[in-house]
Amino acid sequence: MGYFRENVDRVEGYKPGFQPKSRDVVKLNTNENPYPPCPAVLEVLADFDAEKLRRYPDPLGSEFRQAAARLNGVDADWIMCCNGGDDLLTIAFRAFCDSQRAVAYPVPTYSLYPVLADLQDCEKIEIPFDKEFNLPAKLAKTGAALTIVCNPNAPTGSFIRVEELASLADELDGVLLIDEAYVDFAEGTCASLVKRFDNVIILRSMSKGYSLAGLRFGYGIAQGDLINGLMKVKDSYNVDAIAIAAAAAAIKDQQYFKENIEKVKAERARLTAELRGLGFKVQNAFSNFVLAENSHAADIYDKLVKMDIYVRYFKLAGLEDKLRITVGTPEQNGKLLTALKQILSE
Amino acid sequence: MGYFRENVDRVEGYKPGFQPKSRDVVKLNTNENPYPPCPAVLEVLADFDAEKLRRYPDPLGSEFRQAAARLNGVDADWIMCCNGGDDLLTIAFRAFCDSQRAVAYPVPTYSLYPVLADLQDCEKIEIPFDKEFNLPAKLAKTGAALTIVCNPNAPTGSFIRVEELASLADELDGVLLIDEAYVDFAEGTCASLVKRFDNVIILRSMSKGYSLAGLRFGYGIAQGDLINGLMKVKDSYNVDAIAIAAAAAAIKDQQYFKENIEKVKAERARLTAELRGLGFKVQNAFSNFVLAENSHAADIYDKLVKMDIYVRYFKLAGLEDKLRITVGTPEQNGKLLTALKQILSE
Repeated sequence: MGYFRENVDRVEGYKPGFQPKSRDVVKLNTNENPYPPCPAVLEVLADFDAEKLRRYPDPLGSEFRQAAARLNGVDADWIMCCNGGDDLLTIAFRAFCDSQRAVAYPVPTYSLYPVLADLQDCEKIEIPFDKEFNLPAKLAKTGAALTIVCNPNAPTGSFIRVEELASLADELDGVLLIDEAYVDFAEGTCASLVKRFDNVIILRSMSKGYSLAGLRFGYGIAQGDLINGLMKVKDSYNVDAIAIAAAAAAIKDQQYFKENIEKVKAERARLTAELRGLGFKVQNAFSNFVLAENSHAADIYDKLVKMDIYVRYFKLAGLEDKLRITVGTPEQNGKLLTALKQILSE
Repeated sequence: MGYFRENVDRVEGYKPGFQPKSRDVVKLNTNENPYPPCPAVLEVLADFDAEKLRRYPDPLGSEFRQAAARLNGVDADWIMCCNGGDDLLTIAFRAFCDSQRAVAYPVPTYSLYPVLADLQDCEKIEIPFDKEFNLPAKLAKTGAALTIVCNPNAPTGSFIRVEELASLADELDGVLLIDEAYVDFAEGTCASLVKRFDNVIILRSMSKGYSLAGLRFGYGIAQGDLINGLMKVKDSYNVDAIAIAAAAAAIKDQQYFKENIEKVKAERARLTAELRGLGFKVQNAFSNFVLAENSHAADIYDKLVKMDIYVRYFKLAGLEDKLRITVGTPEQNGKLLTALKQILSE
């Protein structure tokens, strides 16, 4: 007997995007928000009460929970705080999936889903998107215990309309987890579906829209029965006292948040237009990144790295000719576009 | 098909100790350190760089990892950072256990182990301690994939000598996880065993000895092959940027840490002596709590609650006549002892 379970031995592990130590690079590879978090977050830290560190944190993260409930128009007991959105994904796999209970999701999508499936030793039913990244009809018929739709999707940036996902929730026998990590940059949200369907879980992240990737904070929205079951699976104290207070401060400052989002959207429009002007094929994105198609994508990626400009390239089926580019500041995007012009003219 | 796996539906979930909101209570129920964390932790917070919040954190927590490696005399790649010790326990169950691979541990012990076993749907082999809480010989013969020994043990406060655990590690075919959450208050540690045995994992927590229960930070020590396998199972960014920096600051200030530990040990000696004087049966404890036996334990517990004094009472086999009392400040312990005198004289 090896020490590890065989499925764990076989797993390669999720590979996070490269994190350069230097700040002097143009870093558009991991979908971080280019603007800082709201000032209230730093005020929370500057003034933090040592007593809250000495004691165990609130296992429910009530301060954040209540703020998120108000924002989403649900009761606080329909909210669960998580140590980043990935924590909720892990909890969902552990709650719903095993060797007899499969997971299903359209591909390409967030590359963590298959890793979590392999760790949980459950079957993965991967249904390919069509060229326009429409919701595959087959997804409703898999019999999976857990179906995940990332919306807006990563790394495509595409968005599926709320009513299509309502129909999917209605057809499914199992749970539908809608991963809205990027929803702050879209025009709609599926949050209203939790009121209509007892099998829908909405995943939210503070990493992108609120510029708090370093804080590890996300949350789930679902009806009380689902939340209560997920609560049994999560670590009792899965979010720390500082993160609860800082995330609550951030979500309460909606004005800062909205201004930040608008800036990213404006740059997304410019980046999309300029990339198209350079000959890339770019669909409209509903996320804080765009997916840019070019038959020399791999080569362009390598040349950008040499110029200290980082975007994301996935060696995956359907993505070999595409670059995922995070929307940066006007200055960062300008440097990228200048570099691309140079590379393409060589 | 229900939404949840059947084993998850059956789980009751771990019940954390009661966390009163008021600060005006004497709170000796969840083994928090009565003294604040070291000043360097608050300095880290006051001066925190927003850029570290905007970006994803270091997935390895290298700053902490290197400090913990130096302290324990191992290479940095023998250390894994965790979102509290519970995170490492969850990861270990997911890495080693399933329906074909059991977990074994002596009882009574930390009540989270059976909850994690049920969530992972693995067999739990529970071997009772004798009256003196010696290591049960049978533990070496269970064939479990994962054996856990909490040392010092909770809630007994007892301590098993390093050489006994070395013999156990040598006899086992599977992994031996030694949960040293309370080791800072003991006289020895099993950390040296990781150099001798490729199947030993040491769990450490910053919650007790370093007064950082609110921060959620722990770490594992094991040989590189075990750490690499556990890394595949953990969430990619399981510890946040603030927690990494704050925990690193705390572990670097060994002088503050040692003074704090000595104060707790001095009060533990006084509390033990005075409880014995009141007629409680109390074994010497190697933790920051003591286990006090009295046939009226349940009744005493209820009366203490009415006086706003919280200790821990477990309705579990072998613990019905015992109270687990966290060592507090001299003032808190004094209030507890005064209350106990009053209750016992009624």
